[in-house]
Amino acid sequence: MSETQVLGAYVGTFVDELADAGVRDVCLCPGSRSTPLALAFARQPRIKLWTHLDERSCAYFALGLASEQPTVILCSSGTAALNFAPAVAEAFHAHRPLLVLTADRPQELRDLGANQTIDQVRLYGGTAKWFVEMPLPEASEQMLRYVAMIARRSVQTAGAPSPGPVHLNFPFREPLIPSGHQPRPKAEARSVEERASEAQRPAKLEEPAPIGAAPPGSIADQFLNAERPLIVCGPRSYANYRAVKRLAGAGVPILADGLSDLRTCGSFFGRQIIGSYDNFLREGRLAESLRPDLILRFGEPPTSKPLATYLYRHRDVSQVVLPTFGGWPDPDLTAASVERDDTHAIWDSLSCCVSDRPDRWLAAWQRAEAASLKAIRDITESDEALSEPSAILDLAAAIPEGHTVFAGNSMPVRDIDSFWPASEKLLFFEANRGVSGIDGVVSTALGAAAKALGQIVLVIGDLSFYHDMNGLLAAKRFGLKATLVLINNDGGGIFSFLPQREDAEHFETLWGTPHGLDFAHVAGLYGVGFQRVTTRAEYVAALKASFHADGVAVIEIKTDREENLALHQRIWRAVADAVTPAAAP
Amino acid sequence: MSETQVLGAYVGTFVDELADAGVRDVCLCPGSRSTPLALAFARQPRIKLWTHLDERSCAYFALGLASEQPTVILCSSGTAALNFAPAVAEAFHAHRPLLVLTADRPQELRDLGANQTIDQVRLYGGTAKWFVEMPLPEASEQMLRYVAMIARRSVQTAGAPSPGPVHLNFPFREPLIPSGHQPRPKAEARSVEERASEAQRPAKLEEPAPIGAAPPGSIADQFLNAERPLIVCGPRSYANYRAVKRLAGAGVPILADGLSDLRTCGSFFGRQIIGSYDNFLREGRLAESLRPDLILRFGEPPTSKPLATYLYRHRDVSQVVLPTFGGWPDPDLTAASVERDDTHAIWDSLSCCVSDRPDRWLAAWQRAEAASLKAIRDITESDEALSEPSAILDLAAAIPEGHTVFAGNSMPVRDIDSFWPASEKLLFFEANRGVSGIDGVVSTALGAAAKALGQIVLVIGDLSFYHDMNGLLAAKRFGLKATLVLINNDGGGIFSFLPQREDAEHFETLWGTPHGLDFAHVAGLYGVGFQRVTTRAEYVAALKASFHADGVAVIEIKTDREENLALHQRIWRAVADAVTPAAAP
Repeated sequence: MSETQVLGAYVGTFVDELADAGVRDVCLCPGSRSTPLALAFARQPRIKLWTHLDERSCAYFALGLASEQPTVILCSSGTAALNFAPAVAEAFHAHRPLLVLTADRPQELRDLGANQTIDQVRLYGGTAKWFVEMPLPEASEQMLRYVAMIARRSVQTAGAPSPGPVHLNFPFREPLIPSGHQPRPKAEARSVEERASEAQRPAKLEEPAPIGAAPPGSIADQFLNAERPLIVCGPRSYANYRAVKRLAGAGVPILADGLSDLRTCGSFFGRQIIGSYDNFLREGRLAESLRPDLILRFGEPPTSKPLATYLYRHRDVSQVVLPTFGGWPDPDLTAASVERDDTHAIWDSLSCCVSDRPDRWLAAWQRAEAASLKAIRDITESDEALSEPSAILDLAAAIPEGHTVFAGNSMPVRDIDSFWPASEKLLFFEANRGVSGIDGVVSTALGAAAKALGQIVLVIGDLSFYHDMNGLLAAKRFGLKATLVLINNDGGGIFSFLPQREDAEHFETLWGTPHGLDFAHVAGLYGVGFQRVTTRAEYVAALKASFHADGVAVIEIKTDREENLALHQRIWRAVADAVTPAAAP
Repeated sequence: MSETQVLGAYVGTFVDELADAGVRDVCLCPGSRSTPLALAFARQPRIKLWTHLDERSCAYFALGLASEQPTVILCSSGTAALNFAPAVAEAFHAHRPLLVLTADRPQELRDLGANQTIDQVRLYGGTAKWFVEMPLPEASEQMLRYVAMIARRSVQTAGAPSPGPVHLNFPFREPLIPSGHQPRPKAEARSVEERASEAQRPAKLEEPAPIGAAPPGSIADQFLNAERPLIVCGPRSYANYRAVKRLAGAGVPILADGLSDLRTCGSFFGRQIIGSYDNFLREGRLAESLRPDLILRFGEPPTSKPLATYLYRHRDVSQVVLPTFGGWPDPDLTAASVERDDTHAIWDSLSCCVSDRPDRWLAAWQRAEAASLKAIRDITESDEALSEPSAILDLAAAIPEGHTVFAGNSMPVRDIDSFWPASEKLLFFEANRGVSGIDGVVSTALGAAAKALGQIVLVIGDLSFYHDMNGLLAAKRFGLKATLVLINNDGGGIFSFLPQREDAEHFETLWGTPHGLDFAHVAGLYGVGFQRVTTRAEYVAALKASFHADGVAVIEIKTDREENLALHQRIWRAVADAVTPAAAP
């Protein structure tokens, strides 16, 4: 067997096993050292390749593309691998399955000044769930069994029960062109059962136990006995819609985060869903009076700061946290306990606990919700001018059912959380909230668009858009379709809401950071649509046109940071005035 | 003392000490958690701020800016810090002084789902020379002495004898606005002596010993006794020009890397400088016949692959490596020894070893050099068309003395090494050769332009240019002046020179990776000059115009990857034909 045949058998076996384990997408960047794996993927007919040129964008794109099975990302050695690091951290903290393959020089070329060589052992530190320094290619039976095991085990480790990134570092010697291996066109019959049992999800992610099964422990008991229970659904709480519907009669307010998908859950919509709390909980007396006696909090920590403040205010109330992916999502340390149990089963158990709870607890929340929505409407409906809040409200009205909103970090995710109204329109929300970086957002959203499960509408600020402009290259490259709402206030709009604003001398230099970029030029550079809208009517028309057009459409709304702050403050004052009289339940 | 005053004293003392230790430049990106340090830097009159929006570009810019004293880079928590990682690795491997300051949540907010929070302890792994997890702000006398020590020690550690990045991670609690501290307008008198003694460089980096001092050990003896000694100056060998001049009569060929600065060392130029070896050492018989009996190799491993092959061919010849920054720069394991001694002293010791060595050894190298240069000239002079080699030759002819050429990675650095002729024109060369990434090159070159030591001409390929297009934002932001020669062959030109080229089926998808970008749009987006030149005359005119104009000028040369490969091959065949008859010394 020649050197290239040994290489061919080694990488070919590895890639075949990945395909058998369900891997379908590989995002990669050009490189020389990664050639053996790149070619093995290219030759495997069950694998789709997505080539990118900037590794940072590439990895974020893969995050968007990842669903149940991990997406593979592959790069050459050196800084290429470090450019993957931001998205690897995001994958770790957002619990997204990712299989990170880095090519490396062999041991004997390391730490000797060889080109593009850094120490890649445990390169991503604690942000990789599992790291393997792979052996040099060999083609012994034992070695091929080993790489097959690594492939299957990587897919399994990157997946359930708590998905995340797995990193394999492959040392390769020259020659780098593998030969001789025949790619397996479909999963091998002899090992299907074996693989099936290996790939089986742990019991806790199976279908929920039937309604009526014994409630696990005391949570259902506490819920049954509470007079003023409150359910908080944070981002990615993946609550059981059926259970929500059953709870409709239980008199329980459900505070649904903008990223929980529960605020816009279609036919399962219940009137107990509260969506405007980010606005009305700013009013201190109301927040005090809406005192619960039990809090069940699902998913990741809520986006809303007023809600966090409210939970902290009532931190002596028993708060049970039910994380979706493990961890301890309780930065304010307000939880009485963080459970490890299956949230599906708990939801179902709760839905059997419908009791004759008096209506006035839920009614108080519903009154605040209604008053808050009306106050917002009164201000925004009379205002023809485009603004950051109206951009969210108009999008919420115009977007068709079934679409996915990708919430950019910094201001957009907060405005969506504040202003996206609860409704029966079935919509989905995504975001990079693992580490909440403003980097890589364009790429992750376009990766999500490439999944082609409905249409993606990204709402993004100008700094974040600039940061990952390179990500736009994917638009033309892969013929993607998406709508990008670009809120351009020429700088860091969120900082106007923070105490940093008081430092007039340094504010613009350090945080305002205006760039003066004219983003119209990206249309020519990247072959995307670009329209700068100046009225709400123009904006809504541009949105609707983009939903029906092919390609990526960038719709830019220019706003002023100071005016934006003033408008938010005006809205929140009006909400406070509107809700105060109706406060006491 | 209020919380904000404690914070003010803590960060103010730290920043004052950095200023006293010589820190002058801070590159930073907007963020909230980094506010205490950002404000302390902004308030310190001895510090200049360079704000950027993309942390990856920011850190690479700082690399370009760094000289003797470390440049500080500062960012907020989370992926922002990870975006620094590529440049931190480059700084480590390229031995550039960098002080990396990352803001972090305090301990009690970590690993709890708090926003923008990752594990930042030892975030850059082995690529940071020193890591300190800083204590929470306090203002006790002992704590202020501690942060002052950390500041001084960081500057010292990041600097000599082997410069590199130091990472300090600062946990900050809210409130984040420091108050009360009066920045020190100049270094404090009482501690000047103390600081001076602390900042003193180790003896080995002091002025070289006077000529005539006793040669250290046996290297000078070996050199004196060798009949066919060869000196190889790799990148950043920082050889002692004076010694080179003294060696002029010693009959010793000096192979000067394109990045060694020795090839273009002005009035110290000696006829023993050989610059075209990357071309003529490709000819195997000549390479065999030019057999040395001693090799002294300075600096980093040479850029040229044919030179590496030549050194490997003669690996039984005693090869002494004299690294500038320590380490073991010998990826091909051809060295007999890697010395730890001071290269300056060794150079000087060699210059006393001028002996009556016969001329024919040097003459053989000079004949090969002359024949190679003539063969290249014969092909390129008759060719009016723009090409990648002629782009280098025309730049070498047009560039004024004293300018700095920044060599982009991948093809540009190799073409510069191949074709930049040795000459008496005094020029300087820079590059990111620590890890040789194609990322961040625009930013590092613009950072070097900001140092304002002469003018920068960057030669860069299209993939590398695309990768760090965000870096162009610095051009307008800081009013920089530079010339960017953009060699655009619409993809990864270097891969055509590698065995990957043989895989016709996958070549364009995996390595050619054409993008079809029209870079003319960057002119409007970033406010830089842009000119696409189509003839050599136009190119030279554009270069000359850019040297006299303000601002950043991008001069684009479009080439064809296949034609480029063919031209290189034609040149190397002609060189081989020309040098073979003159081979034997």
